[in-house]
Amino acid sequence: MLTSDDLCSLRWDATAGTVAIIDQTLLPHTLRWCHLDSLEAFCHAIASMQVRGAPLIGVTAAFGLANALSRDPSSNNLEVARAALLATRPTAVNLHWALRRVVHEVADLPPEQRADRALDCARRLREEDITSCSRIGERGLELLRALPVEGRLNIMTHCNAGWLATIQWGTALAPIYKAHAAGMPVHVWVSETRPRNQGTNLTAWELQRAGVPCTVVADNSCAELMRRGQVDCVLVGSDRTAANGDVCNKVGTCLKALAAREYGVPFYVALPLSTVDMDCPTGGDIPIEERDAAEVLAVAGLDAAGENLEVNLAGAGTRAFNPAFDITPAALVSALVTERGVVSASQDGLSVLLQG
Amino acid sequence: MLTSDDLCSLRWDATAGTVAIIDQTLLPHTLRWCHLDSLEAFCHAIASMQVRGAPLIGVTAAFGLANALSRDPSSNNLEVARAALLATRPTAVNLHWALRRVVHEVADLPPEQRADRALDCARRLREEDITSCSRIGERGLELLRALPVEGRLNIMTHCNAGWLATIQWGTALAPIYKAHAAGMPVHVWVSETRPRNQGTNLTAWELQRAGVPCTVVADNSCAELMRRGQVDCVLVGSDRTAANGDVCNKVGTCLKALAAREYGVPFYVALPLSTVDMDCPTGGDIPIEERDAAEVLAVAGLDAAGENLEVNLAGAGTRAFNPAFDITPAALVSALVTERGVVSASQDGLSVLLQG
Repeated sequence: MLTSDDLCSLRWDATAGTVAIIDQTLLPHTLRWCHLDSLEAFCHAIASMQVRGAPLIGVTAAFGLANALSRDPSSNNLEVARAALLATRPTAVNLHWALRRVVHEVADLPPEQRADRALDCARRLREEDITSCSRIGERGLELLRALPVEGRLNIMTHCNAGWLATIQWGTALAPIYKAHAAGMPVHVWVSETRPRNQGTNLTAWELQRAGVPCTVVADNSCAELMRRGQVDCVLVGSDRTAANGDVCNKVGTCLKALAAREYGVPFYVALPLSTVDMDCPTGGDIPIEERDAAEVLAVAGLDAAGENLEVNLAGAGTRAFNPAFDITPAALVSALVTERGVVSASQDGLSVLLQG
Repeated sequence: MLTSDDLCSLRWDATAGTVAIIDQTLLPHTLRWCHLDSLEAFCHAIASMQVRGAPLIGVTAAFGLANALSRDPSSNNLEVARAALLATRPTAVNLHWALRRVVHEVADLPPEQRADRALDCARRLREEDITSCSRIGERGLELLRALPVEGRLNIMTHCNAGWLATIQWGTALAPIYKAHAAGMPVHVWVSETRPRNQGTNLTAWELQRAGVPCTVVADNSCAELMRRGQVDCVLVGSDRTAANGDVCNKVGTCLKALAAREYGVPFYVALPLSTVDMDCPTGGDIPIEERDAAEVLAVAGLDAAGENLEVNLAGAGTRAFNPAFDITPAALVSALVTERGVVSASQDGLSVLLQG
């Protein structure tokens, strides 16, 4: 039996005073925990995507800042470490947010009190994330229970919005873990999520580890599965949600929403309210990251000898284009599932929660 | 400058009396022509997918039967060779059709006349396919010219419906080749087409060989490209078309049609009339092939040393499901482009052509 500690992406060992993370670049083939015990190690973990997922990046950075202050609590080092951590993934909103939270708490303290306070703050951020995701799970579980399905509940997801992207539970996967724990017969269609294959590499791995039945499919299969009646709902995460309820998430999400509408399948988006950006009126105002073409043209896996290596798919001189996200119009979203409740994907729905 | 012989999947050398095909399993990394000169070689070429695409399979089988009769024109050998070729891909409709055409022409002839007549029939099937695809290209070119686009015309395709799937021209790619030859500034978005990557492996290769500008994208990107206004039309092939105009094509096709409707992009399907199955009232009556899960969980490419090998993407014990086709409802299809003309995707549209 796995404990919650086995379904967790970042451990804090209070006795040893150390942080350990799963090196996600080695998944699904190798589960390796790395102890982080220097500013360089924390920065490398984030920059090299050993840890990824906005909530997890934020918490990791907070522990990194605390670690730096335990060696040198001076104001100069506070600023040096903050800047180094911020530079690892400059566009991740949670990284800014988490570092700001720590700096805000420690900057005015005498240096000798800073390390303990920073560590305390990092541990609180970690606990807050777990609580927030757990609540998303409970809210989402109510939605799953309300679906008019007898027998096995088939849920389709996209990319990785599980505990590997947060600390525990995840966002989109949290309701699934809660349902499985409650004894509901759930089965997850894991969309492989080209081009980086986070579905195959991360989501299938973490669901299997938790004992949740799942099946990987090509992203292309999702309409066909829905046409056959083999999908009871779609449940995905969100990287940024606009004020009108438009959802920016991993590229390919919108296609699932379009297929869901065509075949009458509910399409739910699970998100912490920290991803809502009321400064973006619509999805059209959200900038879409364009990543390296090499992600489309090459892929990593295990060869026959069990060695992890990358192979080139395309012929020499082939060009590729790689937008990392797409926009799902609010009209295609059946509901937003947040830690404060389930609302319509609309300005009205979000306003109620954010004012509450 | 490439000649039409360089943009052709199967050559007949009248002087040497031999057939040569491109081994498509080696593309895009190696272009190797294989001479086929025994029944075994022809059967292997089809069964191992050195040749694929329904029209190309049919023509290859016809040449195989002629080759067998050149060695032994007896009625017994005619039946043995026909059965062997038919067994290579038992579900491919064009294989039945082409073999039936040859047998029909030679069965009642004196044995000494059979080999020449079979060869003549195979050569005619080859020429007919070229003519049919060329006409699809001309009909489709008219549609492309009618699009209200100034400057570069951005066409999205899926899978491979080019000359590698036929003899020359292709179906969906034929209008693109005609447009390029006519000096129209075309650019093709090549959807990689998971899980077998025919977009990256075959379509990008044949377009580059013909000098047509193209860019590979993850299948997941298609809605995002349309949202940005970067797609002027979608042009795909069809493996089978039902009497009501529903289209069965490579899995992922329906998702492009759904995105095209959402963003107001015309969605055209190019097909030879031989793929229309008036015995299937709707797409729901077409059986969908389910292929090996390994196609989703492993991928082939070139390693750093230039060696072609396969790598496993998923962790041990991962399950996958792999439907090879999906159904695009007729209501999502802007027009069917055939060798006899462009019609609506409907019973009325198809009836006019098939009666004509």
